[in-house]
Amino acid sequence: MPDPVTLPVRIIFLDVDGTLTDGVIGFDGVGDSRHFWIRDGLALEWARDLGVLPVVISGRSSRAVEARMSDLSLEHYLGVKDKVAVAERVLQREGARWEECVMVGDDLPDVAMMRRVGWPIAVADAQPEVRRFAKTVLQHAGGRGAARETVELVLGHNGAWEQVLKRYDAL
Amino acid sequence: MPDPVTLPVRIIFLDVDGTLTDGVIGFDGVGDSRHFWIRDGLALEWARDLGVLPVVISGRSSRAVEARMSDLSLEHYLGVKDKVAVAERVLQREGARWEECVMVGDDLPDVAMMRRVGWPIAVADAQPEVRRFAKTVLQHAGGRGAARETVELVLGHNGAWEQVLKRYDAL
Amino acid sequence: MPDPVTLPVRIIFLDVDGTLTDGVIGFDGVGDSRHFWIRDGLALEWARDLGVLPVVISGRSSRAVEARMSDLSLEHYLGVKDKVAVAERVLQREGARWEECVMVGDDLPDVAMMRRVGWPIAVADAQPEVRRFAKTVLQHAGGRGAARETVELVLGHNGAWEQVLKRYDAL
Amino acid sequence: MPDPVTLPVRIIFLDVDGTLTDGVIGFDGVGDSRHFWIRDGLALEWARDLGVLPVVISGRSSRAVEARMSDLSLEHYLGVKDKVAVAERVLQREGARWEECVMVGDDLPDVAMMRRVGWPIAVADAQPEVRRFAKTVLQHAGGRGAARETVELVLGHNGAWEQVLKRYDAL
Repeated sequence: MPDPVTLPVRIIFLDVDGTLTDGVIGFDGVGDSRHFWIRDGLALEWARDLGVLPVVISGRSSRAVEARMSDLSLEHYLGVKDKVAVAERVLQREGARWEECVMVGDDLPDVAMMRRVGWPIAVADAQPEVRRFAKTVLQHAGGRGAARETVELVLGHNGAWEQVLKRYDAL
Repeated sequence: MPDPVTLPVRIIFLDVDGTLTDGVIGFDGVGDSRHFWIRDGLALEWARDLGVLPVVISGRSSRAVEARMSDLSLEHYLGVKDKVAVAERVLQREGARWEECVMVGDDLPDVAMMRRVGWPIAVADAQPEVRRFAKTVLQHAGGRGAARETVELVLGHNGAWEQVLKRYDAL
Repeated sequence: MPDPVTLPVRIIFLDVDGTLTDGVIGFDGVGDSRHFWIRDGLALEWARDLGVLPVVISGRSSRAVEARMSDLSLEHYLGVKDKVAVAERVLQREGARWEECVMVGDDLPDVAMMRRVGWPIAVADAQPEVRRFAKTVLQHAGGRGAARETVELVLGHNGAWEQVLKRYDAL
Repeated sequence: MPDPVTLPVRIIFLDVDGTLTDGVIGFDGVGDSRHFWIRDGLALEWARDLGVLPVVISGRSSRAVEARMSDLSLEHYLGVKDKVAVAERVLQREGARWEECVMVGDDLPDVAMMRRVGWPIAVADAQPEVRRFAKTVLQHAGGRGAARETVELVLGHNGAWEQVLKRYDAL
């Protein structure tokens, strides 16, 4: 199956809960916690190094997500009511078009973004009503490799994946 | 299979541990923690917006559960010895009847409630001795979408599910 | 298959890590955490109410385990070098014999106890080299219902399980 | 299948995230947390007692990993840019050769080490592009018994496994 876009991908928009996390939200007496996937973080660094900008947009605010975003130095917008408006400002700044973007999501609040980007992607365990807006349904679930798989697909599409393997002497 | 009730559902009673959580209770040196499901919380907000009141009743007290309840602004009763008595006060205040209620549970302390409501529901991984009191056994486990699936069933039954899809431009 | 003991069970000895927990030991910058199973705790309370004493013995010390033990008011011994010596003191105090005891375990440090009790039990995901010392291999894994299943087996053996169902109006 | 090395194994090099942990990195408002496997820690103690040195090398720094390393008194190097350089200093100090070493890993940053040791091992859920550099692919996933299985394989290879069983009266 050919990739669903022809232009190189310039931006990967990512949801947080259920996409960069496994959908679990932990609570103790102090506040919230989240589960991220170590290999996702590594892959997002490769993407940035190789000219693809990851941008994280979430409808919720969370000190746990803030901590992970800082850990990865990712551009992120939390507590966002209108994801599309935020994304449009990023597009304008980058001089990019929707067709050059990926959006990875898992649930209904991601649909508006998925309908606009050139390459909408749903995590393996996305809600059924969301999966039908995706051009690619991943083999990995949210927080269990979905972002890693997305980066591999995108860098493969852009012709940059071999550079990752070369960096690790793994060609 | 037709829905097991004919009246619209007005109240969803929910157990916490094993229903809104995955049944795991975490402990560190300070206190307890719980795992909730992000998509459950979203769905409970839809329910409330569309005229179905979620009410959480738990036999245990927990600072972690308190934190999640505040996060979702859910009506909740923790450390409850007699769940039925609490529910009856809610029914009286709302002018509702047991036949208009759902109860979602996973274990023996939920049976008394399940025997009274019009639509008793067991999570996918409920104890076998509890499942037989349910009119619906969910496909999703506790803390892994049980509440989300319940809300979808209930809003579908009430004829309100399309309004959710419309809100997200996902019809 | 008949139960492997004829006398009623008076004491259930339980390991902690991998038996009452799922075998995961969490760490943050402050210390350790553990995952317990809510339905296990409930069942251990039934056992005690119905004349079967649960006694927890662990080779490790842990503030997280201490917290759960207090939460359940369970008799417990942590950081124990010689589990058999501790158990023998319990037997003497209770005037009980090894044949009247269950031991539930998952790994090699539990074998010495399993070889002594009348009814040695291995959790579903016990190490293979431990499973062969068990008279019963559970269907539930450690920290995922192993203790609950044990209590159901023991109370069934003792003829007391119906009293649990009666208590919850679930007969 | 014969073991891929003929000399006894003297050193087991281990990655942390995805190897000693399940690949999840937890975050709350304060910092990170990790999930380890209780039976892995026990096995690494056996290895050390029986003349095989475990050495942990990670590309990331983490207070959670520090805490687990102290808990097990393991030789460890965190935040390492060049894993091979660190390993070579260990080899020199121990008077050991690469052929006498195991490396257990899960992702691309482990490949350079895997290409040098005599016995490269990949965890069951290693990335496909890493698995092909392994002489053994484990049956257990990272943080779910991978280190335990490695120690059993290595002590079996070295002819020391029976001493473990003897210690627990489990022969």
